[in-house]
Amino acid sequence: MSDPVSLPALWLRDNCGCTDCRDPRSGQKLFQITDLPEAPSVATATRTSLVSGPGWEVVWAPDGHRSEYADAWLAPQLDLPPDARTEDAKTLWRAADLADSLPSARWTDYRDDPAVRLRTLNAVGRLGFALLRGVPTREGQVTEVAETFGYVRETNYGRIFEVRVEPDPNNLAFTGERITPHTDNPYRDPVPTLQLLHCLVNSAEGGESGLVDGFAAAAQLRLEDPAGFALLSRTPVPFRFTDTGGDIGTGTGTGTGGTGADLSAHRPLIGTDPRGLIREIRFNNRSLGTLRLPAADTEAFYAAYRRFAELLRRPEFQLDFRLGPGDCLIFDNTRLLHARTAFADHGGRHLQGCYADLDGLLSTAAVLRRSVLDQVQALFADQGGAEYFGESVTQAQHMLQAGALAEAAGAPGPLVAAALLHDLGHFHGETTGHDLMRGTDNRHSHTGADWLAQWFGPAVTEPVRLHVDAKRYLCAVEPGYLALLSPASVHTLAVQGGPMTPAEAERFAAHPSAADAVRLRRWDEAAKDPQAPTPGFGHFRPLLAALLETAPHS
Amino acid sequence: MSDPVSLPALWLRDNCGCTDCRDPRSGQKLFQITDLPEAPSVATATRTSLVSGPGWEVVWAPDGHRSEYADAWLAPQLDLPPDARTEDAKTLWRAADLADSLPSARWTDYRDDPAVRLRTLNAVGRLGFALLRGVPTREGQVTEVAETFGYVRETNYGRIFEVRVEPDPNNLAFTGERITPHTDNPYRDPVPTLQLLHCLVNSAEGGESGLVDGFAAAAQLRLEDPAGFALLSRTPVPFRFTDTGGDIGTGTGTGTGGTGADLSAHRPLIGTDPRGLIREIRFNNRSLGTLRLPAADTEAFYAAYRRFAELLRRPEFQLDFRLGPGDCLIFDNTRLLHARTAFADHGGRHLQGCYADLDGLLSTAAVLRRSVLDQVQALFADQGGAEYFGESVTQAQHMLQAGALAEAAGAPGPLVAAALLHDLGHFHGETTGHDLMRGTDNRHSHTGADWLAQWFGPAVTEPVRLHVDAKRYLCAVEPGYLALLSPASVHTLAVQGGPMTPAEAERFAAHPSAADAVRLRRWDEAAKDPQAPTPGFGHFRPLLAALLETAPHS
Repeated sequence: MSDPVSLPALWLRDNCGCTDCRDPRSGQKLFQITDLPEAPSVATATRTSLVSGPGWEVVWAPDGHRSEYADAWLAPQLDLPPDARTEDAKTLWRAADLADSLPSARWTDYRDDPAVRLRTLNAVGRLGFALLRGVPTREGQVTEVAETFGYVRETNYGRIFEVRVEPDPNNLAFTGERITPHTDNPYRDPVPTLQLLHCLVNSAEGGESGLVDGFAAAAQLRLEDPAGFALLSRTPVPFRFTDTGGDIGTGTGTGTGGTGADLSAHRPLIGTDPRGLIREIRFNNRSLGTLRLPAADTEAFYAAYRRFAELLRRPEFQLDFRLGPGDCLIFDNTRLLHARTAFADHGGRHLQGCYADLDGLLSTAAVLRRSVLDQVQALFADQGGAEYFGESVTQAQHMLQAGALAEAAGAPGPLVAAALLHDLGHFHGETTGHDLMRGTDNRHSHTGADWLAQWFGPAVTEPVRLHVDAKRYLCAVEPGYLALLSPASVHTLAVQGGPMTPAEAERFAAHPSAADAVRLRRWDEAAKDPQAPTPGFGHFRPLLAALLETAPHS
Repeated sequence: MSDPVSLPALWLRDNCGCTDCRDPRSGQKLFQITDLPEAPSVATATRTSLVSGPGWEVVWAPDGHRSEYADAWLAPQLDLPPDARTEDAKTLWRAADLADSLPSARWTDYRDDPAVRLRTLNAVGRLGFALLRGVPTREGQVTEVAETFGYVRETNYGRIFEVRVEPDPNNLAFTGERITPHTDNPYRDPVPTLQLLHCLVNSAEGGESGLVDGFAAAAQLRLEDPAGFALLSRTPVPFRFTDTGGDIGTGTGTGTGGTGADLSAHRPLIGTDPRGLIREIRFNNRSLGTLRLPAADTEAFYAAYRRFAELLRRPEFQLDFRLGPGDCLIFDNTRLLHARTAFADHGGRHLQGCYADLDGLLSTAAVLRRSVLDQVQALFADQGGAEYFGESVTQAQHMLQAGALAEAAGAPGPLVAAALLHDLGHFHGETTGHDLMRGTDNRHSHTGADWLAQWFGPAVTEPVRLHVDAKRYLCAVEPGYLALLSPASVHTLAVQGGPMTPAEAERFAAHPSAADAVRLRRWDEAAKDPQAPTPGFGHFRPLLAALLETAPHS
């Protein structure tokens, strides 16, 4: 455990979480950095037990302020990429990775089921896009989709833009021309970070869609041509868009009006964070303005630019599909390039699009995750406080201890979560543990695993699903195992089917999650000690939140 | 002149402006960089005369494509900061610079007069803010102000947020607490780049406003503590805002809804462009989350952070003023920090705010500038084509030649513009040059200067205003000058008052713009040569556009 005295004092003091220092609702700090003592120091640090588990109480010199810090906060076990917008927090892909498994959902499921909604939003965060199917082909519907997770970003193209052949187009998008992979509005700063394209009609010949993971392509450029990558990431280029339609009058007294635009932005083609991680792609030769650099730099830039452009056109990067009526594509415009093949107008192709922003989408996903965790935490606090079928710990204590034992054993995060949540089925089943004690198997392992599968991947759910079978397995293959069981567990073993037959045990052992289930099972048996240290649920929240972010999309 | 053969070929070809390569309306390129030949080269380059002045016709190998490049485009005389968002394109300020001259305008003038509108928007671009006075104190009016130049950015605080004491505030802004200088929404990415605050009521005691130029303060930090500046500009810090109010339900079938938020962004306190220029400030201790760095880095960061915070609190940086009913402040949230003193609720203080984006505002300003230049260009093309009172050049040729002579003499930009525009009063006066020839002074120097003063600063307008007096002056003090005048100019001299008396000449010479007016006058006399090379108006547009961007706000 980190001793507070060894930590940077100003940082520690700045992170005091007491209600004098922080607003409990918003988490906002109630002081300025300049309000703190010049050189705060820890006067005393005392071990204490906090709601979120063991920790420290610190008294500060010179002002006597008191702060509490949980061990889990002082030394977080998670090493997550802190910035959700860089390549580190993404799953980079090539066309073949997704060709048979587009991240997609039915509109009604997305709308009505928070688990589907979370998986969809997670896919936009992690893969850069998701496809909703069966969205009503009503004009204006695309903004309703955007409003399920955020806010429409209005631009000079309107709140909604019509992607179809226009009689007097101010942009190539509004023609039937082929459009090669590009990001939208690179001449805007801030650039719209999300785009939605909702297909109302697509009976044209052609007009197929394509997506390219610009982060994956930039990472490939870094491998093949590190100097070119560095050049593109450190050279701001001018992007420009002008529209002379309907300029604002200049005579006095003419009032406002007009829709002309003259937009420009200077940004690199590959935006990186201060550590050099890929964070933003802008790629659109159509609106690249005149670069003014010394001749040698211009030549080097153009060589790298062309190389990147060629790389982006490799078929391995471009995921092709066709948008049909009712499909709505949501994609990250700071990462994915989109393209379409040419189409003949007479067939009819009409998409409606709008822009929105990633911060709102990621916030909505974070709120959904928080809600799930609040719900689980409430179960631990309410139903979990009940006695555990004759054991000397409550159900919640039992599960928290199982999680702590998994953590102490150095188990990977998903298995820690599985240990923590393994008996959640007792809370969620239509029958309860008492039925089990009365001789009816409530199949709580399956009930729990099924509920968890809404939110978590198989590395969490399958050990939970198998943890009862693991008891039956261990009793079959380890002669002394039965003797380790508590009397209640011996009682339920019979209801659950007794020790496995050799054939059953062989089948069980072949299951890919069997080893994890067996590990979980041993922690399960051990987690019934009323004297054992038991962390609070809060201790596990960051781990669960991270798992909720990376669960597979389907 | 730059020979096209000496320039980077791919760059030159990529910038071909022919209608096969570029859409004339949007300026968008109609090809991809990968569509160009691998190694284009200039087969022939021939001097030619283009609409925008002298230039080159290039024929390309291997494909025979033809391009035209004006000399003015090949070797632009302007060295403007290319990126309008960095410190290079700004006028940094301290409180004393603006305390007596807040950039401000009456709402009705702003609304009705494009020149006032342009000066106001220029002030936001260059100084980071402007104040509109007399904006109707109607609820919702703030979004109408935003819509005069761009689009409202909706957030979890709504399209409009109410800045007043709220019963259950989710943010300190909605209390009566003092708020020290900060930028808004640092936890949002993209951050709203503009904020508007419209005062409806302010009869509270306290509640004074303050603004700090964060670019100026960061530049000062760079002077005083370069290592600290570097650290703050390369360390992404986590900003976080959570609002647990009204979370979205997680039960199945509950539909959407809820306004909870969980926003986070990882960005440096001082954002710089790849060259290290200051480009964005995020400063808000309230929502600074937990930085996780090695201890030594944490200590160094906190030392620099505190130093920057102390610097931002120096009175020299904070411009204080009081918003009264009808005042609407528009400011750059990527640059300016805003603050307010505490206020007692019972007095009543109510602002309405909204967010918007700088790109739209800068586009609107650019469109206004373009409209002014289009209008002047049209005058050159239409009225300017008329004969010039018996001279052997047209009025337009005369003015273009005067501009070219000033440019060839190495005159500063505003004086080149003055030479180019010196006779614009002939076009704009209610009387024309023919009245002058008939013996009535139309005072075209003053008419022109007054019209130009809507758009340009005194370095442009005053030499224009004095260019007739300069003739009278030169005829008085240089015995041979009268002999240099054309017959028409001799004729008008009499109408204009004849050579100055010694007392008049002395007064004239004392004028701060007299020397510039005399230089202009000599070019004026010389610019009547039907054989002289005469650039097109387009040659001067970039210069005029730049001057329109930097004209003083009042």
